[in-house]
Amino acid sequence: MDTMTDDAPLPGLAADSSLHVAGGVEAPPTMNPRFVARRPRERSPEMLGEGVFAGDPVALSMAITLIESSRTEDQEPAQRLLDLCAARAGKAVRVGITGVPGVGKSTFIETLGLRLLVAQSRKLAVLAVDPTSQVSGGSILGDKSRMAGLAAHPRSFIRPSPAGKTLGGVTRRTRETMLLCEAAGFDLVFVETVGVGQSELAVHGMVDCFLLLTLAGGGDELQGIKRGVMEMADLIAVTKADGDNVRAAELARQRYENAVHLFGATPSGWHAPTLLCSAVTGEGVDDVWSTVERFVAHERSTGFFERRRNEQRRAWFREQVETRVLDAFLARPGVADRRAYLEGLVMRGEVSPRRAAAILVGDQDG
Amino acid sequence: MDTMTDDAPLPGLAADSSLHVAGGVEAPPTMNPRFVARRPRERSPEMLGEGVFAGDPVALSMAITLIESSRTEDQEPAQRLLDLCAARAGKAVRVGITGVPGVGKSTFIETLGLRLLVAQSRKLAVLAVDPTSQVSGGSILGDKSRMAGLAAHPRSFIRPSPAGKTLGGVTRRTRETMLLCEAAGFDLVFVETVGVGQSELAVHGMVDCFLLLTLAGGGDELQGIKRGVMEMADLIAVTKADGDNVRAAELARQRYENAVHLFGATPSGWHAPTLLCSAVTGEGVDDVWSTVERFVAHERSTGFFERRRNEQRRAWFREQVETRVLDAFLARPGVADRRAYLEGLVMRGEVSPRRAAAILVGDQDG
Repeated sequence: MDTMTDDAPLPGLAADSSLHVAGGVEAPPTMNPRFVARRPRERSPEMLGEGVFAGDPVALSMAITLIESSRTEDQEPAQRLLDLCAARAGKAVRVGITGVPGVGKSTFIETLGLRLLVAQSRKLAVLAVDPTSQVSGGSILGDKSRMAGLAAHPRSFIRPSPAGKTLGGVTRRTRETMLLCEAAGFDLVFVETVGVGQSELAVHGMVDCFLLLTLAGGGDELQGIKRGVMEMADLIAVTKADGDNVRAAELARQRYENAVHLFGATPSGWHAPTLLCSAVTGEGVDDVWSTVERFVAHERSTGFFERRRNEQRRAWFREQVETRVLDAFLARPGVADRRAYLEGLVMRGEVSPRRAAAILVGDQDG
Repeated sequence: MDTMTDDAPLPGLAADSSLHVAGGVEAPPTMNPRFVARRPRERSPEMLGEGVFAGDPVALSMAITLIESSRTEDQEPAQRLLDLCAARAGKAVRVGITGVPGVGKSTFIETLGLRLLVAQSRKLAVLAVDPTSQVSGGSILGDKSRMAGLAAHPRSFIRPSPAGKTLGGVTRRTRETMLLCEAAGFDLVFVETVGVGQSELAVHGMVDCFLLLTLAGGGDELQGIKRGVMEMADLIAVTKADGDNVRAAELARQRYENAVHLFGATPSGWHAPTLLCSAVTGEGVDDVWSTVERFVAHERSTGFFERRRNEQRRAWFREQVETRVLDAFLARPGVADRRAYLEGLVMRGEVSPRRAAAILVGDQDG
């Protein structure tokens, strides 16, 4: 039974490796005939894996296209590919970067990423979870143009958010893309959220460090941050702290510092620091990064780094089991219609949720 | 298939109506022979419903015992009883009350509840969600002794948290108890959390208004509040604002006010107020209640009151469908063992979550 149909790409937006931005390479698929002769699904996972392990960006793009596919015949090869990559994945530091639209996430990532790539010999992958991409087909051009420097750098790889009908489908694909990038030798992964919907929670569940970018402004500048997001942050940075805005940014920072103080420490004993930075002047950006590194070191030394990863892996597994079991149930003939009908009764208070659930499930499994 | 076995009471802690505290009545079951002659499960749901509708506290206790039961033969009568009650439920104002252990939730509820019962002709039910009660068997004696005034009042009903092996089981029973209380004419329901585990989220999902009680103190006084809880609050009250503590309480209140300001408004446009009160002197307690009423009026006028309830009902239904479908799946021979084995592989990174889920579910549903 195909349990993947919930998040098949919309017509006209099917995954297509020609759309992918491989940083610096910008290679048409003809660059490496070995991986281009056939469509991804006609290539063996072992061949794709070999290319990924060698760090070939075209092979990586094709591998991602394979795991993003919702075609039934692609599921088994995708799983084989992921199994091949599993042993080589996990060595990157994974940083989630969130903030309301307009906070300047892309500019920040561009500035920070280029500094890291220049100063260190790291390989940086930039991914995204954007549930709105199910409509727009992803923000490919936006990311590419806003991160022009990174896109042109030979040790970077920018991949826009996968499209999908459900946030769960989008999230799963981004997680798996992260594993492929790690297997390809990327030792630094930034996962950007779009800052709307539930994407923050999803990204928080796949990274080692969760960075919230905020803005200074008037008294109500911060309403755009969704409830709950501030408390998930391991680090808060007030951006655009430059020119006339420095004073307001510092005031905003102090207010965040006070709020964060009220939240108390994380289970590992960490208090989220609040910093100032400007992606335009570059000021403070290095401090943000050294704080990320300090946090990661703290998490490693307390054992919470590995614990968080283990818990994330278990959560991904359970989530997928639940999704598959439930999808299989809902795919049975008549179940979806009956569920919709019962849900109407329940919402109007005409039948108790327990009774309605018993009717729906009992019909099938009783 | 019995999907209830996940939260059967532990041996020796089985639900027993003789343990229940019916406020003011303190009635041994012999009080009304009609409802005592047989054990609850031998009584028809229609008879129990009749007693509940008449406001008989003994019938109410027995009805609750029935819906709390995890015995297979009690499931159908419990569902019939809930269906009977559904049309009469929903008329109460439901207020969740949370705060770290030691903040004085019971004292606050006692003071506020007695004031409301004296000033108005309301009927107040006090329920609890305490996932730790799976170990302790509930805080019956604690609640009873800490709310002695309420327990003795003829228009109150205090019910401790149900025991259960899972938070989901505990939560479901409290939700259904709330419906029974409403059908019995209680027009005010307080649901207390224990302030540990995930109980806050569970209670937030079943009430119209979520009140966070906090304390003043040193700089780190607030670490006990779990991340995420502050942002769920519709109203924050700093308690124990009496005697030498008033000044510190006001400072704490201001800090909470600043933090709440950063969160911005709820979807209905509400900014959570921060208040001071003392359950000992009674000061500020009326203000807290009038703010709750102002919030409820705001929610009603904006349409968010009904919307929240509809969404809660749908969430309960979906949650129960998911639980039942998943329980039925996990109850299949060998599945639980295989899941545990695969989970170990996944946590050690030896197999991808997708592969592991496909193996587990594909074995059964593929």
